[in-house]
Amino acid sequence: MEKSKPTKSGGLAGIVAGQTSICTVGKEGVGLTYRGYSIEDLAEQSTFEEVAYLLLRGSLPKQHELSDYKKRLQNMQELPEAMCQILEKIPAEAHPMDVLRTGCSALGSLEPENDTRTQLDVADRLMASFASMLVYWHHFHSKGERIHTVSGEDTLAGHFLHLLHGKKPDEATRRVMDVSLILYAEHEFNASTFAARVIISTLPDFYSAITGAIGALRGPLHGGANEAAMELIEQFPDPDAAEQGIMDMLARKAKIMGFGHRVYRDRDPRSDVIQNCARTLAEQHSDRVLYPVAERIDQVMRREKNLFTNLDFYSAIAYRFCGIPTPMFTPLFVIARTSGWAAHVMEQREDNRLIRPTADYIGPEERPYVPLDQRS
Amino acid sequence: MEKSKPTKSGGLAGIVAGQTSICTVGKEGVGLTYRGYSIEDLAEQSTFEEVAYLLLRGSLPKQHELSDYKKRLQNMQELPEAMCQILEKIPAEAHPMDVLRTGCSALGSLEPENDTRTQLDVADRLMASFASMLVYWHHFHSKGERIHTVSGEDTLAGHFLHLLHGKKPDEATRRVMDVSLILYAEHEFNASTFAARVIISTLPDFYSAITGAIGALRGPLHGGANEAAMELIEQFPDPDAAEQGIMDMLARKAKIMGFGHRVYRDRDPRSDVIQNCARTLAEQHSDRVLYPVAERIDQVMRREKNLFTNLDFYSAIAYRFCGIPTPMFTPLFVIARTSGWAAHVMEQREDNRLIRPTADYIGPEERPYVPLDQRS
Repeated sequence: MEKSKPTKSGGLAGIVAGQTSICTVGKEGVGLTYRGYSIEDLAEQSTFEEVAYLLLRGSLPKQHELSDYKKRLQNMQELPEAMCQILEKIPAEAHPMDVLRTGCSALGSLEPENDTRTQLDVADRLMASFASMLVYWHHFHSKGERIHTVSGEDTLAGHFLHLLHGKKPDEATRRVMDVSLILYAEHEFNASTFAARVIISTLPDFYSAITGAIGALRGPLHGGANEAAMELIEQFPDPDAAEQGIMDMLARKAKIMGFGHRVYRDRDPRSDVIQNCARTLAEQHSDRVLYPVAERIDQVMRREKNLFTNLDFYSAIAYRFCGIPTPMFTPLFVIARTSGWAAHVMEQREDNRLIRPTADYIGPEERPYVPLDQRS
Repeated sequence: MEKSKPTKSGGLAGIVAGQTSICTVGKEGVGLTYRGYSIEDLAEQSTFEEVAYLLLRGSLPKQHELSDYKKRLQNMQELPEAMCQILEKIPAEAHPMDVLRTGCSALGSLEPENDTRTQLDVADRLMASFASMLVYWHHFHSKGERIHTVSGEDTLAGHFLHLLHGKKPDEATRRVMDVSLILYAEHEFNASTFAARVIISTLPDFYSAITGAIGALRGPLHGGANEAAMELIEQFPDPDAAEQGIMDMLARKAKIMGFGHRVYRDRDPRSDVIQNCARTLAEQHSDRVLYPVAERIDQVMRREKNLFTNLDFYSAIAYRFCGIPTPMFTPLFVIARTSGWAAHVMEQREDNRLIRPTADYIGPEERPYVPLDQRS
């Protein structure tokens, strides 16, 4: 077997690992489309349920299809009793991403994929129930309360906010959450999606791929970035302190999260959208600190490093104004990205080939075995 | 960003995805070495604990290091109470790989990696406790029994067999299990190991990578192959029926599991070793069916398709003679391969770069958004 040369930069950067009809990203340095529709159009005119339908079924739903789909997802919110019991055993101090990773895996044994439970059933069930898992675990450990995981809300954004806060969300907040889910839904062969495709390429069950993807999303070089951005922003009391702080961090070459992107050269098209959302909620909340601090950090990074904000940066602020605790930021990313992961899993299955690269060996030459009693 | 051409065959076949010092595989079409030692030497002269030490610590242990390491693993066999309770909630009819996938993920929240619990602690703990998880769940659901997960055995092979059968294994059986664990321990950038490296490249916790790897191993194109081989072999009452059956399957182009390999051209060096093990146990058990049937299938495949048995084929027979239920074959692969996965996770972390390839887009051109009420 002939080996190709390793790419100079490593990490398979710029290596085409397969074909997809789901998403373009970074075309001419900026573009993002889901099945041909621009992210700007989708974020402005569409809803998350329409986008999930588009990603999973290939076309935008008609009115009656959308109504049916929203009902279907709504009927999939409730958790089985065994799931609740498992969630109660996951400690209060656990990372919420571990809760979803374990919950996803456990659901795979409680409700396995089979001849009557298809891959689309599993995909929709996971999307609809992740919020229920997360918030059930949260309330059980923070308040000792076993919540009912049916909210009566017919959108995933509304369902999550309603369960978390115990009441119907206001429409502006719900819509920001909805837009955020649209923006986070899909992004081509990012690390978690690629992990899902590698896993499903051995032809295991659907849950195995999503469980692995959650693990990949957990890292600060991927989904964890929005939490890191929040921690950065909220440490400064005002914009001037932020400017000083960022200059100090740059001087000591500290890593500043929420900027730049492996695939985008010039800007992240999702960032403008979520910045507008964050600004709207900041005004609604009469905020005088968080948004101005974020904006100043943005300006300093542009001026000093010519770096642009990516989706994670202003998402952090938007989520804060939605009343979301920081450790739930990446789990929200899971809820959204499950739509994209699921679309890629189905696409990989349609024309599967085992994903198995090779390695460049740099270890010891072949050497004779030394028996235990002769080792020194 | 410049894109490379997709490889003709897809699946990253022949593409170098990174560097490793752990393992060579398929050198001159046949070789397999762990850190420079040939698999033949290791299987003949070494033990699984020495191999795990070698993979994780980089060199073969001296006598006192090995004693300490075996004690360390022995002290890590017992499961925490919360883990037992979670295992009890996973249904009796679940796939045992789902049990380990969920158990691994759950342990990550019960015993998280942190400043005092290092990656080596987590790696050893998972290796030592996977057998306990699997067999605890098995006995709870098959006999309603809550077993104590400490066996008093100082090898992983002995621990697994002792817990499963409720008594000390005979030495021949234990040694075959030990050799099998050595053979399954490591195999370069196979799909599950590569999945683990993709996941850890975003810098999440250790458990995320191993959980994902278990999911990848679950598929029949990877770890699931030994179970499929067993199902193939045991359907035939004698060698002549097997020959007829295989000829029929070949005629209708059915997939026959346990033959050939993406990386090896001429033979799988592990197959000879495990075939000898299977033959030894067959003689011990005065077997007149399984081994002769397997050997005949092997001969027919060589004659008709010029294909060689891979590790999975005779492993199936060996495991059967060890008294292992077929659905536990792939979980045994997990116990062994955790040593290799862990070594790769640590290696990836040492010189990390996010693993994020790109895709060749073949979907719809950019198109205008159609509002909901105008879709037809």
